[in-house]
Amino acid sequence: MATLSKKELSLIDAYWRAANYLSVGQIYLLDNPLLEEPLAADHVKPRLLGHWGTTPGLNLLYVHMNRAIRARDLDAIYVTGPGHGGPGLVANAYLEGTYSEVYSDISRDTDGLRRLFRQFSFPGGIPSHVAPETPGSIHEGGELGYALVHAFGAAFDNPDLTVLAVVGDGEAETGPLAASWHSGKFLDPERDGAVLPVLHLNGYKIANPTVLARIPEEQLADLMRGYGYDPHFVSGDDPADVHEQLATELDACLDRIAEIQQTARTGKKKPADAPAWPMIVLRTPKGWTGPAEVDGQQVEGTFRSHQVPLAETRTNADHRKQLKKWLKSYRPEELFTDEGALVPELAALAPEGVRRMSANPVANGGQLTRELRMPDFTAYAVDVPDHGTTSSEATKVLGEFLRDIIKANPDNFRLFGPDEVASNRLSKVFETTDRAWSAEIIPGDDHLAPDGRVMEVLSEHLCQGWLEGYLLTGRHGLFTCYEAFIHIIDSMLNQHAKWLKTTRDIPWRRPIPSLNYLLTSHVWRQDHNGFSHQDPGFIDHVVNKKAEVVRVYLPPDANTLLSVTDHCLRSRDYVNVIVAGKQKALNYLPMDEAIAHCSRGIGIWDWAGNTDGEPDVVMACAGDIPTLETLAAVELLREHLPQIKVRVVNVVDLMRLQDDREHPHGLTSRDFDALFTKDKPVIFAYHGYPWLIHRLTYRHTNHDNFHVRGYKEEGTTTTPFDMVMLNDLDRFHLLMDVIDRVPSLGSSAANLRQQMGDARLAARRYTREHGEDDPQISDWTWGAGHGTADD
Amino acid sequence: MATLSKKELSLIDAYWRAANYLSVGQIYLLDNPLLEEPLAADHVKPRLLGHWGTTPGLNLLYVHMNRAIRARDLDAIYVTGPGHGGPGLVANAYLEGTYSEVYSDISRDTDGLRRLFRQFSFPGGIPSHVAPETPGSIHEGGELGYALVHAFGAAFDNPDLTVLAVVGDGEAETGPLAASWHSGKFLDPERDGAVLPVLHLNGYKIANPTVLARIPEEQLADLMRGYGYDPHFVSGDDPADVHEQLATELDACLDRIAEIQQTARTGKKKPADAPAWPMIVLRTPKGWTGPAEVDGQQVEGTFRSHQVPLAETRTNADHRKQLKKWLKSYRPEELFTDEGALVPELAALAPEGVRRMSANPVANGGQLTRELRMPDFTAYAVDVPDHGTTSSEATKVLGEFLRDIIKANPDNFRLFGPDEVASNRLSKVFETTDRAWSAEIIPGDDHLAPDGRVMEVLSEHLCQGWLEGYLLTGRHGLFTCYEAFIHIIDSMLNQHAKWLKTTRDIPWRRPIPSLNYLLTSHVWRQDHNGFSHQDPGFIDHVVNKKAEVVRVYLPPDANTLLSVTDHCLRSRDYVNVIVAGKQKALNYLPMDEAIAHCSRGIGIWDWAGNTDGEPDVVMACAGDIPTLETLAAVELLREHLPQIKVRVVNVVDLMRLQDDREHPHGLTSRDFDALFTKDKPVIFAYHGYPWLIHRLTYRHTNHDNFHVRGYKEEGTTTTPFDMVMLNDLDRFHLLMDVIDRVPSLGSSAANLRQQMGDARLAARRYTREHGEDDPQISDWTWGAGHGTADD
Repeated sequence: MATLSKKELSLIDAYWRAANYLSVGQIYLLDNPLLEEPLAADHVKPRLLGHWGTTPGLNLLYVHMNRAIRARDLDAIYVTGPGHGGPGLVANAYLEGTYSEVYSDISRDTDGLRRLFRQFSFPGGIPSHVAPETPGSIHEGGELGYALVHAFGAAFDNPDLTVLAVVGDGEAETGPLAASWHSGKFLDPERDGAVLPVLHLNGYKIANPTVLARIPEEQLADLMRGYGYDPHFVSGDDPADVHEQLATELDACLDRIAEIQQTARTGKKKPADAPAWPMIVLRTPKGWTGPAEVDGQQVEGTFRSHQVPLAETRTNADHRKQLKKWLKSYRPEELFTDEGALVPELAALAPEGVRRMSANPVANGGQLTRELRMPDFTAYAVDVPDHGTTSSEATKVLGEFLRDIIKANPDNFRLFGPDEVASNRLSKVFETTDRAWSAEIIPGDDHLAPDGRVMEVLSEHLCQGWLEGYLLTGRHGLFTCYEAFIHIIDSMLNQHAKWLKTTRDIPWRRPIPSLNYLLTSHVWRQDHNGFSHQDPGFIDHVVNKKAEVVRVYLPPDANTLLSVTDHCLRSRDYVNVIVAGKQKALNYLPMDEAIAHCSRGIGIWDWAGNTDGEPDVVMACAGDIPTLETLAAVELLREHLPQIKVRVVNVVDLMRLQDDREHPHGLTSRDFDALFTKDKPVIFAYHGYPWLIHRLTYRHTNHDNFHVRGYKEEGTTTTPFDMVMLNDLDRFHLLMDVIDRVPSLGSSAANLRQQMGDARLAARRYTREHGEDDPQISDWTWGAGHGTADD
Repeated sequence: MATLSKKELSLIDAYWRAANYLSVGQIYLLDNPLLEEPLAADHVKPRLLGHWGTTPGLNLLYVHMNRAIRARDLDAIYVTGPGHGGPGLVANAYLEGTYSEVYSDISRDTDGLRRLFRQFSFPGGIPSHVAPETPGSIHEGGELGYALVHAFGAAFDNPDLTVLAVVGDGEAETGPLAASWHSGKFLDPERDGAVLPVLHLNGYKIANPTVLARIPEEQLADLMRGYGYDPHFVSGDDPADVHEQLATELDACLDRIAEIQQTARTGKKKPADAPAWPMIVLRTPKGWTGPAEVDGQQVEGTFRSHQVPLAETRTNADHRKQLKKWLKSYRPEELFTDEGALVPELAALAPEGVRRMSANPVANGGQLTRELRMPDFTAYAVDVPDHGTTSSEATKVLGEFLRDIIKANPDNFRLFGPDEVASNRLSKVFETTDRAWSAEIIPGDDHLAPDGRVMEVLSEHLCQGWLEGYLLTGRHGLFTCYEAFIHIIDSMLNQHAKWLKTTRDIPWRRPIPSLNYLLTSHVWRQDHNGFSHQDPGFIDHVVNKKAEVVRVYLPPDANTLLSVTDHCLRSRDYVNVIVAGKQKALNYLPMDEAIAHCSRGIGIWDWAGNTDGEPDVVMACAGDIPTLETLAAVELLREHLPQIKVRVVNVVDLMRLQDDREHPHGLTSRDFDALFTKDKPVIFAYHGYPWLIHRLTYRHTNHDNFHVRGYKEEGTTTTPFDMVMLNDLDRFHLLMDVIDRVPSLGSSAANLRQQMGDARLAARRYTREHGEDDPQISDWTWGAGHGTADD
């Protein structure tokens, strides 16, 4: 028996035609939206900017999901991998009324249709992609590869949600997408929702066939089975036939999902029974229902339908005629009333209220965001009896705070990391939770469980993508990563930052929790992995994004890390990058001072300098290792050149260095000058590439006196102190820099400079002989024996 | 019948034990390499930096490959996915003699052994990974994900080569690796060599089990079949049993490879018969043959063997005792002579000369590099009768040059791109070649063939990785990509740049062809894709790399693009980034001037300015669109404020802006001042993020007068001129900037400023009304009607 009655099939097909009509209308028409007049050149847009090829397939899936939503009262969203199919998603949001609700000028009548068409890819209008402006979207889909991973991120901790994830066969060739299929092993059918992937094989990319469309179907089925899915195939180019197949297979898939969830949720499932989730392979022609042939070349069913099949509709009457025929082929007169509204019989096919995929609050996650329940971070403070005399592993301390955040927010916060949570010394979290793992578990495994709150997979792409999906649907999280390898997701960060920037100007989009990074195992302490693991450049990448979106923090010790993390986790709509060490390092500030310092973001450390007045030199530092080396240099300076007045400035919030016209955290000229003077040398020890400090400070008065040391791409497998020496960031070199910059110090300084050079050579010799740093250097603490302890 | 005779098995096992012994020795021992004395604390390294877990598996595969190489006279290299297994690859290079050939101090005796052990992960010694310092390596393996794609890159156009590609099961979780399996569809069994992937399932990452080790074996087999392979399984923890299995399956795989190649090369194969290539799944314990248990916890066969199973061998006598037992378990006395040389019976197992995988010249590709045969690029010049009056599509012109390079170098050059070669207007190349494609080909396909020289797949990771493998083995190539999405491979660029930097200091490593990028479809002309496709930040990322390695070029038109590309393709050991437009744009320079301009890299365009002497303002520009807007602004300036003396400086080679102490291409202060003056305002229109210009120029005298316009992260789907206006880079705004910066211009300037503001509003209004730019703006050419044409 057929799944669809004749009547249902006819209605579904009509709804699909309506969506296709509106899609073509958006790409082509400036006016005359219902073709009530003869189609004239000036009814057509002068520049045709849009993508037709993928759109009919997206529309097809939308209307079939609508049927399923109504039939099952499904709570569902639609993630569009081929985001350039924007016209289709806009069309559907319009057809079901959401579009007019959020954009009141785009009304459900002829005038609204005109505006809907005109605004698309038009100056002052809307983008061509499934952008933040598109209701129901959590995924712009411009940079391909992240549809499936976003879908899984949305499904985590949303047990009632079904995410339809359309994966284009172009996108399927990307690395991140290829890895994303494995996400099922990290999804708990009991506590998480479901993802239904649809691999849409329309066969072509911009100019080429796609790999997965050109391998034998049995090989493709093997691939999907290998990824852990049970593939359901739907193929054809006859609409009625495809409608029937798709309705049948979609029902089968949703039945199977319900069954898997039912089994899991009624306690019948053993953890190791990883189910094969259903997925759909939909094989339909690219540019389906569009012009079969243009100027003698086949277009429908080929890569030539990728963008605009008819390119000269403004100037070429034949093309225009063909456009009209194409539009008319959808029989708009059957679909829309004379006033331009969807006919009621079709309007009734859409789900209602928040069941509409375009109006599901999950896709405007800020609406659903619950505040994190935050334990008092000061309760985790390390005791700091004196500045810089005791040590902690900062991230290990943070682990206790994170543990209790996880405990207090059992369905609202997750920790993400590429197999590095333990390596990054956050293992305390495993006192309260496990790593999410729905594949096989064997004796001896360390904290694995299907409902674990720690997401670990050796893929920065998956960590980032899951977290993005989780945040975009209103929940909270933290991504902890080796500093060097966070570059793997540079481009994903770009896209998320662009999303955040854009949503700030969309009133109906509510703020979402910030994207928080904890970068550790950083450039200065990759002792055992060496050069390939040494790269602090993610900060540089991030600060290229819009100033109102990005924040960078370099807490120098455990208490400042606690304070900064608390701040970041409470924030909204930012990208927060925290860089902190995991190795044993000095505690500089007791908690009260840490809080004060972090809330200023930058400040003078009076206890470290030797003057309350105007200094001869400013020693500035940002980052744990630069702070250590700066203080050690300051101590040497105070011992050997006590006549020099030195001020120590520590920077936690890097954006404080910028001009207040450039960044909302930026300092005024007056405040900057008060810290760094107007004319004194500033020796700045910085965690990353030194020129970033110049780029941030170049507008400030005293910039020409800034002398910055940082990572200059020198490194290997070696000791910590050898690393700083390789990059001239060591205490001895910093002191040499002071001597070189402070005028007229006389001959004692020249001798001291020589001594410092000798100390460097001795340190290198020691290291190469013993294979470890001289303990006099590595065990250094503030004030030990040099009479500079806090008084 | 067994594949291995008892004698063979025993020898192979002994060789494996020798490699394992040397691996453990490197990780632990400072001295007493053959345990001739009792093992004392100071024989052991104070800091243990290395990774044991993966190493025995790598050593196992090495000795078995050696057997196959000798038996078949194979030309083979070994790509080590788990690059942290460095001790194993170093051990094998040492065992077969290569190590001592390239590092004469590491001799094949006890003294050499001592040095071999000591140098590993030791200050002043060698890195812990399979770094450039390791003979036979083309793959550092620190950032995981690229083993397989590098292997394929090496195999292309090397028909006699077999690349063993070991993929760790951790690495297998990454996106790039997951996509890499599909590389087989782009390999021509007739003209390319073979890749034999080994998926090494040792079951664990740093702290977690691996996904592929925990799915049912049948699912894994499906996955491999789905990827297009015929999997051969080898599993066990009994060495003798595993030796026999591995020898048998390796033989079967190599037989099958020979058969596929034979079929393809004797013309019996139809293009569509994509063969299932063999691959091996090797399942052996992590840390195999290491300590089974330490301090009561299981170590062998778990994630606890990832790094150093015994962590306290210096301070804990029990650990040291266990280390001794572990080392002795390999029975070194059977493996090495009293003088510390490998016993002759074992030494005889290694292949000889260049058949040794550590000595194969393919893995030191510069040795094999043949010069590209370069047609004369000036033959492709566009005719430029007057500066800036005619138009070309620069990349389309370049396409002709590339076509003929491909033609002249049929086995030595490839063009790589993520489905964008046609979109980037390089289609002329298809007059001489096709896209590489070994999957199904159907009628209507556009230039697909197994032996195509254009590598197109929708994965920037694969394009980059294939090209890296191709370059590292001594061939030439060019990667053309949308500018925004090249960020996808930021981290891969990092690793390649680090490789290039390191090899400069390794005398036996020969220079290899440069890594060349052509970035087009750039930020200013993403009219139809909008914000997600707009990002010029790759340049910023690249300039963080070591100055001696990176070069960035912004040719403003077709002839300069030809000249720059010719230069880049001839170079060695650089990363060259070329950013150029693909849209119709003005031709500024005839070829002779283009050559002169490009060889200087920066220069005054006399024809555009109105003074030979000291100017009142310098209008500088870098990039095609900034050059266009600058010239249009200059023309307005010359028309409306003819009393102002303006100089136009165009920058092609971005690194010329830096100080000569910072970059080898940098200008001296004197030269910089001669171009930019010491004190006049400089209005700089730049292609990318404006602060990069500040970062490059901050050391120069006149820096404080630099006023830079560029992309400030504002964009959407809109017209070209609207894009430049959104970012204040338009001609009108540049002129306003001049007025704001040149002192005492009087009231006529104030009026002009107002006019310019009005012109911006009018332009925006026009665009929003018509959906395209005002033709007066978009059709602008130099000198048209304003009396500023060249005279």
